[in-house]
Amino acid sequence: MIVEAKSAQFDTIALESGASLSPVEVAYETWGHLNAERSNAILITHAFTGDAHAAGISHENGRPGWWDNMIGPGKAFDTDRYFVICSNVLGGCQGTTGPGSINPATGRPYAMSFPVITIRDMVRLQKMLIDHIGIPMLLCVAGGSMGGMQALEWAVSYPEMVRCAIPLVTTWRHSAQQIAFNEVGRQAIMADPDWCGGDYYDKKPPARGLSVARMIGHITYMSDESMREKFGRKLRDKEKVGFDFGVDFEVESYLRYRGNQFVGRFDANSYLYITKAEDYFDLTNGTGRLVDAFQKDDAFTKVDTRFLIISFTSDWLYPSYQSQEIVRVLRRINGDVAYCDLQSNYGHDAFLVDIAEQSEIVRGFLDSTARIARAA
Amino acid sequence: MIVEAKSAQFDTIALESGASLSPVEVAYETWGHLNAERSNAILITHAFTGDAHAAGISHENGRPGWWDNMIGPGKAFDTDRYFVICSNVLGGCQGTTGPGSINPATGRPYAMSFPVITIRDMVRLQKMLIDHIGIPMLLCVAGGSMGGMQALEWAVSYPEMVRCAIPLVTTWRHSAQQIAFNEVGRQAIMADPDWCGGDYYDKKPPARGLSVARMIGHITYMSDESMREKFGRKLRDKEKVGFDFGVDFEVESYLRYRGNQFVGRFDANSYLYITKAEDYFDLTNGTGRLVDAFQKDDAFTKVDTRFLIISFTSDWLYPSYQSQEIVRVLRRINGDVAYCDLQSNYGHDAFLVDIAEQSEIVRGFLDSTARIARAA
Repeated sequence: MIVEAKSAQFDTIALESGASLSPVEVAYETWGHLNAERSNAILITHAFTGDAHAAGISHENGRPGWWDNMIGPGKAFDTDRYFVICSNVLGGCQGTTGPGSINPATGRPYAMSFPVITIRDMVRLQKMLIDHIGIPMLLCVAGGSMGGMQALEWAVSYPEMVRCAIPLVTTWRHSAQQIAFNEVGRQAIMADPDWCGGDYYDKKPPARGLSVARMIGHITYMSDESMREKFGRKLRDKEKVGFDFGVDFEVESYLRYRGNQFVGRFDANSYLYITKAEDYFDLTNGTGRLVDAFQKDDAFTKVDTRFLIISFTSDWLYPSYQSQEIVRVLRRINGDVAYCDLQSNYGHDAFLVDIAEQSEIVRGFLDSTARIARAA
Repeated sequence: MIVEAKSAQFDTIALESGASLSPVEVAYETWGHLNAERSNAILITHAFTGDAHAAGISHENGRPGWWDNMIGPGKAFDTDRYFVICSNVLGGCQGTTGPGSINPATGRPYAMSFPVITIRDMVRLQKMLIDHIGIPMLLCVAGGSMGGMQALEWAVSYPEMVRCAIPLVTTWRHSAQQIAFNEVGRQAIMADPDWCGGDYYDKKPPARGLSVARMIGHITYMSDESMREKFGRKLRDKEKVGFDFGVDFEVESYLRYRGNQFVGRFDANSYLYITKAEDYFDLTNGTGRLVDAFQKDDAFTKVDTRFLIISFTSDWLYPSYQSQEIVRVLRRINGDVAYCDLQSNYGHDAFLVDIAEQSEIVRGFLDSTARIARAA
């Protein structure tokens, strides 16, 4: 399944901060076909360092998509039945306008003059894209981690456009610990002299700082147990410790490799902007915005969006209790919410790699939502 | 209780790597008085970034010790009854020979020519100090985190010299996740151009890298819950998010402060050497060195050292299951081991701050050990 990168451009987008961006471009890919009723569209929202290439083989570089095990013919997001869309987030560096894009006012990259963005802004741009494609209502918005925040934000910002939402391994507000991990990553980047206040686009990028930030991330994406199973205390040279500062343990080698590899595909300023958007994310907004959104008319209005919330037992970055908070608030307002805490040792990465049970649950949930939609 | 820094110097120490250091100096402090039988001495072993100043008010700088709530007249380590000693570890930067010390062969700091050291080497130097002070047998060796590794190593290397050991919040072998966190800290330091391959002693130190390393550490020392209680999503300016990359949340401000503060008191090269010593720590040594040590003569020789193992429920850096592994291996060889998994929300830091129950347990354990010793 070869897939081509697409792109849409809009004159302007108004941002939550009060700033605006003109113009704004959004990179996206699609799989399957929109039916005549335009009722079978699913928007996939990607995690922090993901991109629009969620499935299939990239026409440009031959790489498989990041959720190729979940999206395709006969898979959980079945492209024989559904029209699936994924776009790169606002602030990203994979085709959508971000800090590395050219500011038309100066002819140079925005860098740190790029306005601070939020999850709501990301979703606003996705809404513009969905309108542009001509989809009146999405069958589903689904995503994990930061993608789950976007799925929740869709249900709050545009509830009339979302039949069902599948927020996986996520939270309705970033916690102090989650902010702390992001902040250390940002500090690692900004501590690198090559960062140059963000103006590195015509020089060498802050590779060392970005690499350290990514290494921290990788630890948080795995679990203690999955690290033990994958690496244990296995030595790199299989003989003995080196009594030096070279690579002794395989886990050290893995982290250095993943850190270096990341530098080639991700922009450090996007790292700063996107983590900040995560940290600002708070659907409670002090006063329970998620609740408010569904209580506009009546305290116990039936929420029309159906929810499937999924967490994994060994995910300590977005622990299960955070998903359960969302379930509780939705139940409190009589929302239609199903919740599964799936058993896995893979930590936060489980939604990307340990997908057998997740696939079946998503498949059934989409199927029942489509049946309800047809009956309506 | 004003306490003065003391120091002892030895001609040479042979290291586990095969290298040696000549001469070697060890900084230490003592509290209370050694009794006539020389039977009331307790060695306190410090955690990673700790030092010899465990209790009392420093004569040099007026600061209280890092375990002042546990050590003193009437406290858990009661200096009215016991003679308490704490020394700075080998490789440290608080008076004991480390990478920042002058190499007599060159007249310049060792920097990265300092030999790689292990927990066993740290304990070997402590043994030389205890011999020097003239103590034939310690009533107790007690410490948390890396201090707990030293307490375990004492019981393995010099079992005839340790009546009881109190390893707190520790492990008998560093796990892949623990190695991973240490490795990221090292990479943060070595990524800082000011590190200069370790030769920064006559220039400015790698402050940014060391600060980032410390920030990572601080996240791991707290729990998700203690961070939420302490910071939540509280904003720094109490009004609103800044929509910029200044400090929005209190947790960001806290981490930056702790990172910067650390730079003033700790040497980056010591950070590298000491974390590496932790990572090499493995009492199983593939073949169960902890077991072997107690099985020299007979498979079920009674272990004479008594153990009190303490963990805390919310410690995810040195999780309770790791303490339980030690308990299981000691029970398997019929060791005298008591184990308490104490309820606390403070994470790894609990052994330093949430000490009410810990104090009572330690007090009783020391008292019973002293009574058994007198009866023997």
